Amino acid sequence: MTMKKPINIGIVGTSFMGRAHSNAFRQVSQFFDLPYRPVLKAACARSAEGVRAFAEQWGYESTETDWRALVARPDIDLIDIAAPNNVHHDIAIAAAEAGKMVMCEKPLGRNAAESLEMTQAVERAGVRNMVWYNYRRVPAVTLAKQLVDEGKLGRIFHYRAKFLQDWTMSRDLPQGGTGLWRLDASVAGSGVTGDLLAHCIDTAMWINGPIAEVTAVTETFIKERKHQLTGEVAPVTIDDASLFLARFANGSLATFEATRYARGHKALYTLELNGQDASVAWDLHDLHRLQYFDHRDEGRVRGWRSVHISDGDHPYMKHWWVPGLQIGYEHSFTHQAADFLGALDSATPASPTFREAMATDLVTDAVLASARSRQWQSVAG
Amino acid sequence: MTMKKPINIGIVGTSFMGRAHSNAFRQVSQFFDLPYRPVLKAACARSAEGVRAFAEQWGYESTETDWRALVARPDIDLIDIAAPNNVHHDIAIAAAEAGKMVMCEKPLGRNAAESLEMTQAVERAGVRNMVWYNYRRVPAVTLAKQLVDEGKLGRIFHYRAKFLQDWTMSRDLPQGGTGLWRLDASVAGSGVTGDLLAHCIDTAMWINGPIAEVTAVTETFIKERKHQLTGEVAPVTIDDASLFLARFANGSLATFEATRYARGHKALYTLELNGQDASVAWDLHDLHRLQYFDHRDEGRVRGWRSVHISDGDHPYMKHWWVPGLQIGYEHSFTHQAADFLGALDSATPASPTFREAMATDLVTDAVLASARSRQWQSVAG
Amino acid sequence: MTMKKPINIGIVGTSFMGRAHSNAFRQVSQFFDLPYRPVLKAACARSAEGVRAFAEQWGYESTETDWRALVARPDIDLIDIAAPNNVHHDIAIAAAEAGKMVMCEKPLGRNAAESLEMTQAVERAGVRNMVWYNYRRVPAVTLAKQLVDEGKLGRIFHYRAKFLQDWTMSRDLPQGGTGLWRLDASVAGSGVTGDLLAHCIDTAMWINGPIAEVTAVTETFIKERKHQLTGEVAPVTIDDASLFLARFANGSLATFEATRYARGHKALYTLELNGQDASVAWDLHDLHRLQYFDHRDEGRVRGWRSVHISDGDHPYMKHWWVPGLQIGYEHSFTHQAADFLGALDSATPASPTFREAMATDLVTDAVLASARSRQWQSVAG
Amino acid sequence: MTMKKPINIGIVGTSFMGRAHSNAFRQVSQFFDLPYRPVLKAACARSAEGVRAFAEQWGYESTETDWRALVARPDIDLIDIAAPNNVHHDIAIAAAEAGKMVMCEKPLGRNAAESLEMTQAVERAGVRNMVWYNYRRVPAVTLAKQLVDEGKLGRIFHYRAKFLQDWTMSRDLPQGGTGLWRLDASVAGSGVTGDLLAHCIDTAMWINGPIAEVTAVTETFIKERKHQLTGEVAPVTIDDASLFLARFANGSLATFEATRYARGHKALYTLELNGQDASVAWDLHDLHRLQYFDHRDEGRVRGWRSVHISDGDHPYMKHWWVPGLQIGYEHSFTHQAADFLGALDSATPASPTFREAMATDLVTDAVLASARSRQWQSVAG
Repeated sequence: MTMKKPINIGIVGTSFMGRAHSNAFRQVSQFFDLPYRPVLKAACARSAEGVRAFAEQWGYESTETDWRALVARPDIDLIDIAAPNNVHHDIAIAAAEAGKMVMCEKPLGRNAAESLEMTQAVERAGVRNMVWYNYRRVPAVTLAKQLVDEGKLGRIFHYRAKFLQDWTMSRDLPQGGTGLWRLDASVAGSGVTGDLLAHCIDTAMWINGPIAEVTAVTETFIKERKHQLTGEVAPVTIDDASLFLARFANGSLATFEATRYARGHKALYTLELNGQDASVAWDLHDLHRLQYFDHRDEGRVRGWRSVHISDGDHPYMKHWWVPGLQIGYEHSFTHQAADFLGALDSATPASPTFREAMATDLVTDAVLASARSRQWQSVAG
Repeated sequence: MTMKKPINIGIVGTSFMGRAHSNAFRQVSQFFDLPYRPVLKAACARSAEGVRAFAEQWGYESTETDWRALVARPDIDLIDIAAPNNVHHDIAIAAAEAGKMVMCEKPLGRNAAESLEMTQAVERAGVRNMVWYNYRRVPAVTLAKQLVDEGKLGRIFHYRAKFLQDWTMSRDLPQGGTGLWRLDASVAGSGVTGDLLAHCIDTAMWINGPIAEVTAVTETFIKERKHQLTGEVAPVTIDDASLFLARFANGSLATFEATRYARGHKALYTLELNGQDASVAWDLHDLHRLQYFDHRDEGRVRGWRSVHISDGDHPYMKHWWVPGLQIGYEHSFTHQAADFLGALDSATPASPTFREAMATDLVTDAVLASARSRQWQSVAG
Repeated sequence: MTMKKPINIGIVGTSFMGRAHSNAFRQVSQFFDLPYRPVLKAACARSAEGVRAFAEQWGYESTETDWRALVARPDIDLIDIAAPNNVHHDIAIAAAEAGKMVMCEKPLGRNAAESLEMTQAVERAGVRNMVWYNYRRVPAVTLAKQLVDEGKLGRIFHYRAKFLQDWTMSRDLPQGGTGLWRLDASVAGSGVTGDLLAHCIDTAMWINGPIAEVTAVTETFIKERKHQLTGEVAPVTIDDASLFLARFANGSLATFEATRYARGHKALYTLELNGQDASVAWDLHDLHRLQYFDHRDEGRVRGWRSVHISDGDHPYMKHWWVPGLQIGYEHSFTHQAADFLGALDSATPASPTFREAMATDLVTDAVLASARSRQWQSVAG
Repeated sequence: MTMKKPINIGIVGTSFMGRAHSNAFRQVSQFFDLPYRPVLKAACARSAEGVRAFAEQWGYESTETDWRALVARPDIDLIDIAAPNNVHHDIAIAAAEAGKMVMCEKPLGRNAAESLEMTQAVERAGVRNMVWYNYRRVPAVTLAKQLVDEGKLGRIFHYRAKFLQDWTMSRDLPQGGTGLWRLDASVAGSGVTGDLLAHCIDTAMWINGPIAEVTAVTETFIKERKHQLTGEVAPVTIDDASLFLARFANGSLATFEATRYARGHKALYTLELNGQDASVAWDLHDLHRLQYFDHRDEGRVRGWRSVHISDGDHPYMKHWWVPGLQIGYEHSFTHQAADFLGALDSATPASPTFREAMATDLVTDAVLASARSRQWQSVAG
């Protein structure tokens, strides 16, 4: 057994995504045999007390309260950005310029202009980079991608995706503030478009290729809310719902929808592709299953197959337990960490790189533009 | 187009099963091209007013209030027994002796002794006969039978069936009385054993062959109830629940369960077979679907297929609508009528004949005997 | 028991919808206690032999081969139009002018202009009229409507509907011709827009009110097909897929999609509404179930309820069997016939009248216009 | 933030359960705020090379190749037994006598006699002890227990459980040998009875109280297999399938079934309770859902609720992610570790203790005895 080479991680952000990334880094070496082993070197957040508690809980060796100090540390190999969207841009560029590898929570920037500058920075610096579009690494979704790539579905006619939540429906919910930056467009960039639709778009283009054009509508159902920090009632600036029709470059048609006003759905990300010969469907509420229909099956016993993605021949699953035993949401991040580390010695970096992830921002920009202009919008590329 | 030959029906019983059988006779000629056409000649029930209303509603040409008068009528070709269990025996034997064809609602007799006499009567008279074990004719169940017969499942290891209801759980429900004869063992023969388990057993033996031996337990959860007719509180004589383990002649093992105390289940009849190569499962609450698993499918996309039984190559379904459009419970009876009429000119009568249906009574007798003796019981045969 | 008054039916069309309507008229009196009883007086189709066979099978007393002759018959009270879309207009107007009640298969006209003339004709004549948007009468859909009307869902934020099929995907399928008029835009008016989307739109507006504006895209995936009648390869004129986003008058947002290129889906009509307090969802492949989510349930045990619509307190269901026993597609028509007949003596006619159904054609016109113009389109009204 | 007190773990066994337990000990401190923190002190297995690799992968500080040496080490606080069933007895007793806390993989002993001696040893020594019946700690199962304890279901009438697998169906599978000790009765104690049924029984009695009596049948479908170690074809000594009917002390009736010959089922552990007022059902293939039916719901919208167990008010779930994001199988062990550590300072130890787990062995002994005697068997206790 050869010793693994350490990769010293410095993470910025200690909230939900800080936990999810840290967990991935802590878990990956027990389940995947990789040439590199992540070392939890330093955690960074503005609150000194908060970051110390986080570091102790997750096993980080040290803490910082200023991300610039973290970026400047020579013992850090990789900066992992798990902070709100509005700081992605500056941290990523500074980290790249300091020669660090950069991993960034999605969306890359608040818009494609930010993303382009970030992409140029990492490419100029020649550092490895990746964006945490974790749902690609749900084994069932990875399998869907494999089936499409192998041609099992044949020509694709339809794609449909939606991401439905209901957690912001109360009138009493404040906007912005601690733990609520997703409700503040100046921080987040947009509402559900950048938050939820971005996931749908990333997976869609990964599996089905580029989106050519869109027609969209967005809505903010509750127009004013009290701001948590200022206490003042102010117009809500985020989109609560965002829907669009799309035509892919391959000619297939699509519906996309994201909303936080779909009562009864906690985080229901669904996707489906219909091809000439076969179809696949998946949803996040039963993420360990893939629905598969094959028209080549004998007619009398042809039906949608509910495939329990827990066997050794399913993507990633030989690393886990035994058939029938499902893994959870968190391991989409573990898989992403494994793929990133596993590709470090390869010429081909793990996907999605910043450049690949920027493609999603070009679509979300087009969606928001179409919603404003009430016109079909081509996706820049 | 050749004219269909009429079969003059005389029905006894105008309640739930009277309606179900009448509907089947009314519908079958519109959907199936048969050599015979049922004519609703006479309906019989004790209430003159009731039977006249029934006859008008369903289109019967005449009425009787005494089944002996009905059996004696020369214009009747077929006596259909849709009356409570305690009169099956006498009507069937009288009808056979009068040379009528006989169709009888299940179970055939209240016990195997009654069933044997009924069977001997129709065989002695040489008249066509059938018992309405309608669930065999649910297209999904028929398909399951076909798949097993074709060997698609290979050697069978397991059978499991249950029939769960919850309609008798209220303490206020009376026993016996109008519309409640199923709650009176002297009329029904037994509780859920003859009512629900009989369906499970009939289908099981049709698909998987004879049952060799059983060990059983029954229970009456509410021990006393007021009798509707007498008004007196009396011990409840029926079994509310009946469970047994079985070994089939082919070596497979089974669990069977029927109860009217399964809160949340209205009429959940389920069955499943597990074979060497494939498995099938079905339930009555989604009767238009068959679950099918084929181990020969490619591993990565192997899963239970939910087959929507609504295509032209599914049993009976070319006679109905178009793919995707389901049919209801009632047409299990329509199919049984079609099979009976379609086989009249054939040497092989439609199944189950009285003799075939008697096999189920031998099993229910064994179940009740085992529950009393607390011993394994071989099935007589 | 009072005698029912007869309504003499003359039907035009003996194909799929001719069978569905005839079955409804034959069945309704056995299950619903109505003041009127349909009498199958005459069937009309161009083939004398075909219509005679149809009449014998379904019990029509007489036949016609020219609908004008049928309309002229004094013994006919009601003309039921089950013929292709291109003849709806002329037959309906003639029937109205002859003073007959008119029932018409959907869509009413090939476009709103035709529908308007038909509507004016029946209103001018003062005759009862209805369009067979049968899915309203699926009990689960009716229940969804009731729940929304009662305010159980609160303010509606989202509506989504799709109708997915896959039966036209083969390149070898001809266009137009016998039994294939739905593939010929000159006969049908449009492709899936008028065929499938029309159902989605009718139900949507019935439950959720008027649609204000739409943005749409349509596609014809296989551009040329051989015409069955001429044998020549010609451009396909129908839309294979039709998708649109909509804003309802009540402010809710919607996605709509219909296609015949969704491999694996036979006739998957789905709908869902998300409200402030509750949500409902339904699909045609399990038409006897309604999915219901109520946010007011206790949090720990809150979840989507799969309601088996087979109890006596569910719409229409007390007329059928017992809890747990599902009914089929065909009875959406039976219920529509029951509602029509049941309302004949009432001031309020059964819905949808021609005028109500015309609203759907205004939306489909807007959808097709938007797909051509690539602009948002307001719905005329 | 107070520092957590360390608990030094010494684990015996490095296979499937060795990984599952180690993962739990590594994960628990990041997600649960506990007074104690497990320290992975030493791993023990017979192969020096194997155990070193395991220790490196999982972060154990040291290794042993003889469990007696491990038990003798003064720096070990807790012996965790993740080795095959035949060594549970000796290790547990030695560990207890050495004053160590003991955690033991299920089943406790190969039979109740072994379990009794183990129980007496830990009780004599006064050391904390627990058996890893992990499925109790699946949040959905814990919630089911809570609902029953709160009286939400009312009087229980029925319990049903099964554990279906299909991984041993191939005739080519050897018996016994490396990684296959579950197929050797001398090591495992029995086949599916102790392996799978034991889980079903533990959960059942935890939720529904003691089992009074059973009638059982077992079967070995393939009678001879080649032994992996000896290479000789020998009679198979384990039970491939084990089924029983039971009566609980509370009067409810049950069916139990476990098999490795249920084609299509990987690890389908299912359970259901039917009560007077409500019912619950759960299965391991969708372990993050609980099915709940409440008869007190309004009739029209009453149905089985599919509860997605991922909210903060669900058992254990506030420690994980956000609503809608499921956790996997492995965290049933994490929860068990959390409960064990969290109860160390409490008078009441975490359940199931050895004594509580021994109750399951009394039932499995009764099941095997009934299968041999073909008699109902009372459960000793």
